[in-house]
Amino acid sequence: MKYSQTFIPTLREVPGDAVIASHRLMFRSGMIRKLSNGLFAYLPLGLRSFRKVENIIREEMDAIGSLEVKPTVLIPGELWKESGRWDSMGEALLRVKNRLGADFVVSPTAEEAFTSLVRNELSSYRQLPLLLYQINTKYRDEIRPRYGVMRSREFVMKDAYSFHADDLSLDEHYQAQGRAYRRIFRRCGLTVIPVKADSGAMGGSGSEEFMVESEIGDNTLLLCKSCDYAANVEKAECKLDYSPRFSEELARGAANHTPPLEKIDTPELKTIEELCGFLKTEAENFIKTLIYRAVHVELDLSGAPGYREPAKHRPATGIPEIQEEAFFAVAIRGDLDVNEAKLAAVLKASEVSLAADTDVIRITGAPVGFAGPVGLNTVPVLLDETVTGMNDAVTGALEKDKHYRHAAYGRDFTGWLTADVRTVKAGDRCPICGGELYEKKGNELGHIFKLGYKYTKSMGVSYLDENGKTGFPTMGCYGIGLDRTLASIIEEHHDEKGIIWPVPVAPYHVSIIPIKYQGAVKDACDTLVTELERAGLEVLLDDRDERAGVKFNDADLMGIPWRIVAGDKNLAADTPRVEVKRRSEKEPRLMTLRGAMAEITEAVQRELAAGRE
Amino acid sequence: MKYSQTFIPTLREVPGDAVIASHRLMFRSGMIRKLSNGLFAYLPLGLRSFRKVENIIREEMDAIGSLEVKPTVLIPGELWKESGRWDSMGEALLRVKNRLGADFVVSPTAEEAFTSLVRNELSSYRQLPLLLYQINTKYRDEIRPRYGVMRSREFVMKDAYSFHADDLSLDEHYQAQGRAYRRIFRRCGLTVIPVKADSGAMGGSGSEEFMVESEIGDNTLLLCKSCDYAANVEKAECKLDYSPRFSEELARGAANHTPPLEKIDTPELKTIEELCGFLKTEAENFIKTLIYRAVHVELDLSGAPGYREPAKHRPATGIPEIQEEAFFAVAIRGDLDVNEAKLAAVLKASEVSLAADTDVIRITGAPVGFAGPVGLNTVPVLLDETVTGMNDAVTGALEKDKHYRHAAYGRDFTGWLTADVRTVKAGDRCPICGGELYEKKGNELGHIFKLGYKYTKSMGVSYLDENGKTGFPTMGCYGIGLDRTLASIIEEHHDEKGIIWPVPVAPYHVSIIPIKYQGAVKDACDTLVTELERAGLEVLLDDRDERAGVKFNDADLMGIPWRIVAGDKNLAADTPRVEVKRRSEKEPRLMTLRGAMAEITEAVQRELAAGRE
Repeated sequence: MKYSQTFIPTLREVPGDAVIASHRLMFRSGMIRKLSNGLFAYLPLGLRSFRKVENIIREEMDAIGSLEVKPTVLIPGELWKESGRWDSMGEALLRVKNRLGADFVVSPTAEEAFTSLVRNELSSYRQLPLLLYQINTKYRDEIRPRYGVMRSREFVMKDAYSFHADDLSLDEHYQAQGRAYRRIFRRCGLTVIPVKADSGAMGGSGSEEFMVESEIGDNTLLLCKSCDYAANVEKAECKLDYSPRFSEELARGAANHTPPLEKIDTPELKTIEELCGFLKTEAENFIKTLIYRAVHVELDLSGAPGYREPAKHRPATGIPEIQEEAFFAVAIRGDLDVNEAKLAAVLKASEVSLAADTDVIRITGAPVGFAGPVGLNTVPVLLDETVTGMNDAVTGALEKDKHYRHAAYGRDFTGWLTADVRTVKAGDRCPICGGELYEKKGNELGHIFKLGYKYTKSMGVSYLDENGKTGFPTMGCYGIGLDRTLASIIEEHHDEKGIIWPVPVAPYHVSIIPIKYQGAVKDACDTLVTELERAGLEVLLDDRDERAGVKFNDADLMGIPWRIVAGDKNLAADTPRVEVKRRSEKEPRLMTLRGAMAEITEAVQRELAAGRE
Repeated sequence: MKYSQTFIPTLREVPGDAVIASHRLMFRSGMIRKLSNGLFAYLPLGLRSFRKVENIIREEMDAIGSLEVKPTVLIPGELWKESGRWDSMGEALLRVKNRLGADFVVSPTAEEAFTSLVRNELSSYRQLPLLLYQINTKYRDEIRPRYGVMRSREFVMKDAYSFHADDLSLDEHYQAQGRAYRRIFRRCGLTVIPVKADSGAMGGSGSEEFMVESEIGDNTLLLCKSCDYAANVEKAECKLDYSPRFSEELARGAANHTPPLEKIDTPELKTIEELCGFLKTEAENFIKTLIYRAVHVELDLSGAPGYREPAKHRPATGIPEIQEEAFFAVAIRGDLDVNEAKLAAVLKASEVSLAADTDVIRITGAPVGFAGPVGLNTVPVLLDETVTGMNDAVTGALEKDKHYRHAAYGRDFTGWLTADVRTVKAGDRCPICGGELYEKKGNELGHIFKLGYKYTKSMGVSYLDENGKTGFPTMGCYGIGLDRTLASIIEEHHDEKGIIWPVPVAPYHVSIIPIKYQGAVKDACDTLVTELERAGLEVLLDDRDERAGVKFNDADLMGIPWRIVAGDKNLAADTPRVEVKRRSEKEPRLMTLRGAMAEITEAVQRELAAGRE
């Protein structure tokens, strides 16, 4: 391809909002342009690399037997109402009404569409497993889109969905997807951190996120210095400071030696810090109790304190009824923080947030600052695991200016539910090996997830098993964001001059730069193009009438892996030569045309093949 | 690919709404499924053929130097407001508001997006021509989507846009697109009728539609029995029964011999038929006058009767102001009909329709049925060309129960504008050669169109020419509907058993059917698959445990061009053989494995290459 026949509007300037390298370089190299906030157009150079990422993903999906399909981008709202996500998804879901008043969503993900497709076709266990994927346009109505295509509103995602007769089959495909993801990212030249959300034990639920380290990452990762444990803070666990089982027994025994529960005056003392000073103790001897409001709670609350019969009923699918709003008290050791993502997961709630002051007063019977688990019976009390190891603690007494001391778990209070809801932080101990955990910021590129029966039961997908009995398939979903993957490659592979593409995702393999495109130089360049293209390489010939320096800068900016410079002087020598340089190298080498072509062709073909192994 | 490892849910039944062959066959062969009214999902078999059509289009666009880009599917509403189409497009435009209140459209076409992209990059004539295209999701909010993917709401279109410094360059690319379209449709095995909307003379405006004949086509085509004239009825012309120039002179002279205009009583006579009986004359001696309401009129009306200063002004781009609503009287010979599409084109209006009775009464001063061009001065009078040849006509007298007779053009009335707005019909004379015209129903698959300065001027796209002067680029647009093209291939290539794919768009080239997939038959089939795939052919091996009849029917339904049947009996003969049949042939032939592979490979490769010539 001749530069003059393509459309690569390179720029020196960058827009003010381009704060990360990939955004700056994609813009400057003419890969993308902004249509409006969060909406980007790929220009020819950008689209070439985009398609290469797309094709790597397609090859790896096909290789594990996943079948490509193409549903629409607009999905009937009815399907989202069936699954319940029409209500439970927040405002990031773009809802549209057409001229006839029918509801649609602009797909942010496609569990409903695929479940509906399969529902209408599935009858027998013989059809399972069903492994399907699409590579298609998605939309998320981000309030603050930024960082270029890294967090845009419209983007392209590969999303795969699998349907299985049993957990063994689901686990097999889940593992195959995980291996495919590792190959995909390796072929793209990306260093990813696979973050397991739980043990992923066969048959159990499982979830793995594929992260790249990034300063602007919206995920906090906890990694172990001693083993390969890695987790998103939203799910990270750590070694308990007290072993719950041991502590529970100890607590019961120890409570005998704990002085009786005592209500004390704590006038004007509200914060744990103030109380510590007053009582001359440490924060870890406090039980901090917070009142949370949870929305769309799927956890079965029947019989819990404060339980109200929900207004909304689910169809008879065996799924417990949903509480649109419910309140909880969460008690945790005073030196720790509650992680709302972990809490939401425990409650199976779509959202949790601290309750309003008026709700706190109604629930605790006291002003804000005096909540505690002792005697609290208006809402379910959820104890963080750490609390079960506390047998002589200070906590609020549900009364203005009053606290309890000597509160002991098992003697003075218990909880409706005990769970791990603490925020793990750097310095905590690895749950696997006890090593020290440290933090990194990360961006999520992909996610594989065992969904189980959530959609197949709520949307009524069934089949007849070998014995003629009705069964629900279990389901997995597997997503990769293409735009974000592309941008992350640039984040990992660039220098101050521009991009340094790994060969499998480079827009062109070779940039040929004639000092002046005429005479013997033109002939040599044309020969190089013809021969390299015949060998299957993709070549950009910079035939522009520009200074050599401009062409060099643009080639560096675009990041094409190999550069050949042809000039009169070197071509007129006894043995005609050209300058050859890899983008990642500093100094060019003089080589014969034949030598240059042989070396480059061999290297490019080897690097293209390497990823496929 | 093994049948058991793909997902091809074939069916015997068809849904009641599938009235055309392609809809029935795409559904039955498991190519598509309906998600909701007008929204279809392509399943793996359908997507394979879809991608082949897509790749043929991509190859042909690349071959003429058009560069692929990828804007978003959601386009900022602001751009559509700039071009004026936010208002002028009807309700088929799906408008969306996001959570922040910003307006978007789900792209039905992308003139605005491409014009905006180019506007920000274009500075010099050296950058022109700019030839860009996308293959992307589109949406049209059809009220009555039907005929499967032939008229769905969401679909995929290839839309190209070109920007040029002069008409010569535009015409060159317009012609190249036209040639590319002919190659695309030929490679897809389609017989298209290219329908020129005007002479397409170099530098003039030009438009060509690529139609396929179809019973359910929403276009009426007029074709000449003697030459290759073909036109959409919306634009079709015909030889004038009176030559306007000649008749005008004749009319002036003849009017001297025409008796004076005479007002006559025509009580209770309203239709032309009734008047003909009363006056003992023919419909072609009547001037029929209709009052039309036009919306969003771009034709310059300053100074015309009834002209009102428009409320809305255009930015100073040299484009006349727009009248949001205007009324016109259209006079035409009594035996002819006004074509509203041609009328709208003359008026540059987005829509025209017959005026309401109250408006007719206000404008003509008489009840409906007495309009006529004589003395009508409340609105502009538009004369169809035919009227300028009438010198002794009957027409309404703008008074209840009164008509004029002996009305002569030039003597008793003239028009504000004369144009060709008649509906051409079968039996009319070809405007080129005078031959007889006949009608066909057609569906439009593609359209190439010289847009000129419409978007570049309204959206302010400019560049500096060689002399440093500011110029506006002239623009062309070129669209093909992919889904409709795919469905049309099936319409043209099927029989009572199923689809008969042309090789270049077949989902697989060869179907291999073992009578029972075991023993020697399995070995033979596996060898065939391996060898044919090694030769680059795409093979579907029907390894299902089904009766041979079921497999034969499915292969016929899916329309795979070649079929090989392997059975114990033929394989156990002294010379082992298999049955080979083309989908289009009636009887199979017995061939050796080697012979079958050689013949099929040669034929498939030849047919794939043929299209590329």
